[in-house]
Amino acid sequence: MDQRLTARLADAVDAAFDDQTAFLAALTAHPSTRGNEQGAQTFMAEALAERGYTVDRWQIDVAAIRGLPGLSPVPEPYEDAVNVVASHHSRTGKGRSLILNGHVDVVPEGPKDMWTSAPFAPRIEDGWMWGRGAGDMKAGLSSNLFALDALRACGLAPAADVTFQSVVEEECTGNGALACLQRGYTADAVLIPEPFAETLVTAQLGVIWFQVRLKGRPTHVAYAGTGANAIEAAIPLIQALHEMEARWNAPANRPADYAHMDHALNLNIGRIAGGDWTSSVPAWCVLDVRMAIFPGQGIEAAKAEIEEVIRDAARQDPFLRGAMPDIVYHGFHAEGYALSLDGSGTAAAAIGALKAAHGAVTGAELPRAPITATTDARFFGLHAGTPTLVYGPRAEAIHGFDERVDLESLRRVTKATALFIAGWCGLEDP
Amino acid sequence: MDQRLTARLADAVDAAFDDQTAFLAALTAHPSTRGNEQGAQTFMAEALAERGYTVDRWQIDVAAIRGLPGLSPVPEPYEDAVNVVASHHSRTGKGRSLILNGHVDVVPEGPKDMWTSAPFAPRIEDGWMWGRGAGDMKAGLSSNLFALDALRACGLAPAADVTFQSVVEEECTGNGALACLQRGYTADAVLIPEPFAETLVTAQLGVIWFQVRLKGRPTHVAYAGTGANAIEAAIPLIQALHEMEARWNAPANRPADYAHMDHALNLNIGRIAGGDWTSSVPAWCVLDVRMAIFPGQGIEAAKAEIEEVIRDAARQDPFLRGAMPDIVYHGFHAEGYALSLDGSGTAAAAIGALKAAHGAVTGAELPRAPITATTDARFFGLHAGTPTLVYGPRAEAIHGFDERVDLESLRRVTKATALFIAGWCGLEDP
Repeated sequence: MDQRLTARLADAVDAAFDDQTAFLAALTAHPSTRGNEQGAQTFMAEALAERGYTVDRWQIDVAAIRGLPGLSPVPEPYEDAVNVVASHHSRTGKGRSLILNGHVDVVPEGPKDMWTSAPFAPRIEDGWMWGRGAGDMKAGLSSNLFALDALRACGLAPAADVTFQSVVEEECTGNGALACLQRGYTADAVLIPEPFAETLVTAQLGVIWFQVRLKGRPTHVAYAGTGANAIEAAIPLIQALHEMEARWNAPANRPADYAHMDHALNLNIGRIAGGDWTSSVPAWCVLDVRMAIFPGQGIEAAKAEIEEVIRDAARQDPFLRGAMPDIVYHGFHAEGYALSLDGSGTAAAAIGALKAAHGAVTGAELPRAPITATTDARFFGLHAGTPTLVYGPRAEAIHGFDERVDLESLRRVTKATALFIAGWCGLEDP
Repeated sequence: MDQRLTARLADAVDAAFDDQTAFLAALTAHPSTRGNEQGAQTFMAEALAERGYTVDRWQIDVAAIRGLPGLSPVPEPYEDAVNVVASHHSRTGKGRSLILNGHVDVVPEGPKDMWTSAPFAPRIEDGWMWGRGAGDMKAGLSSNLFALDALRACGLAPAADVTFQSVVEEECTGNGALACLQRGYTADAVLIPEPFAETLVTAQLGVIWFQVRLKGRPTHVAYAGTGANAIEAAIPLIQALHEMEARWNAPANRPADYAHMDHALNLNIGRIAGGDWTSSVPAWCVLDVRMAIFPGQGIEAAKAEIEEVIRDAARQDPFLRGAMPDIVYHGFHAEGYALSLDGSGTAAAAIGALKAAHGAVTGAELPRAPITATTDARFFGLHAGTPTLVYGPRAEAIHGFDERVDLESLRRVTKATALFIAGWCGLEDP
């Protein structure tokens, strides 16, 4: 790595880091939970337009993505699902093109009284920025943007087309990233700065969301013996699903990337609701469940087994036997993806470029690890054949209370991203 | 029983029964779930005023009932809690006074698609009226009202004051009936035509409502091992509560009225809600629980044991140990009540009068049985020393789907009520 370039880009990132921090705080202040991303997307589109990029902002067209591989069932009307993409068009086009991807949607903040301070009023303390989405992954959107700014501040431009993507729906379907593919955005590599502590993600799991709906006959609790309690009927189903989880995690089923993990695949009962009245035996109960699958594990086979497990457990219950649960898919239909299995020269080159950038900034080897979550990387990796590097800053308590991102880590990632762009795309005069 | 009077009153009830059925349908059409009883109460108040009764309609004053025995914790502001009471003032006052009590609030209808027809669009089929509240207990309000009408149609009036009460809050606290006591309404006996199939209720259970609130640290499900699942943490608490339920139902604990019942006391997990996002480990879960107690079982001791059971179970869970559940009381604090234990001459006379009226109408002995629910009878019986007869028409699926009341049973109960008023209060010229 060119030490002079490294120093110049690092200085440029440092010079703008207060601005970047302020930008991240402003972006984090937008409560961009699913369906409420418009304010954050307007903020992103304006930031991109101010910099002179061509900005493409569009409402995701369900009809256009329907039938595409990787589509997840759409839970609701998509009128509020808007992507923002900006493009740098290289003058020379002599380098390798790149997509810098990030998602602007955040998961719900949960009970506010569990937060030390308001989740959408970001604050900085002890070198961390605290707030819902600060880590997952608005910090990454800021590092993508300010890495490009750093090149520009040095009087340089990527010598290939660079596409900056701010997508929605990462936290429930991935259909935002899918819509970018459908709209024709491709490149030679993709970088997604999800907050995995400056570690290159070698593999990610697949995720399936499903809803189990139980419905029975409620009655006055005085005759509880004659009415089935739909809430309690869910308990053996949960237990049966955990037994399936244990089977799927068995050593024989683990691919190489996960061989060392006893419990990579987590089943999560994420939400429950049931019943209408304390003194009525509840007639209904709905569970929202997330289950992970390994890379290579087929979604349809996984779904078939989930359904079989639920139905087998239900058949052992006298009440459920007569009122079999409905199983409804309402979100992630995500396959796993392993960069480690991409044997292409392009993948090797992209990893090499990131390794060099990381080494130049940190002086250390690029750590690599599989993760037990999914990211939008799967769309580019599986459905566009594009090696996708997931590499971003350190964050803690993502999806939890007091979510926070390490600002010095963000600074390093921004520098590494600028260097990676320079190394991967090459440079030209603006 | 005077056979001629029996026949005259029966004829009067028959003559007005189409009107009574129409009245019941109109009343059932009001969706008078808790907080939404105003329309039904206006309907009742107008029906009473049209008949020339003095009508007392008032908003329950929480400050006035606070501290009274039998009060249940108030779950919300009471601005919408309105009682309607009408009074017949006897000219002579030579007989025994009577309260005819009924509640106008109904429990929620639950999922509408489980109903054969719309729950608040009552219909008549095969001799039953179908609709939420038709049985529990708008039919009883109609029998109280039309029994008084039958006396009047025969040119007769009760020879003692009769108070007609249409109260709210029976289904969650009983504070509507309590407010009637507080307002000064008393009598020598009370009749409440709850829908227990023309059977005199000899004893009723007490009921306690409590909420168990679990709260933990949510996290990304990728790290499920580090976050506690508040929904699943509820499962061992439910199991511990069922073990307590079994202990309380043990033969040694049963009073005489319930000695023959293996499971009079039902624990009901009536509602559950928890979690915000399918891929976040849920941070919170709230259970709404109903537990019954026997007559004579103290509420404070029962609450103490409930709390101990929950806390003991929580202490065995590594996560809950550090985040003990909150236990909140938000409804019924109802003691049991046994008419069978009222050894007074007044009670014997009231039961005798009902027995005679029932026998005159049906030609059969008055059936007697304990019930496994609570009713407002406890206020009059326990806190005003007034024998309270719970005796009403046959209904099915109360608190369930396709709730319905047997119209011929309602007709008989209306006749028996008219005769009971005549026998208990005596008669005078209007």
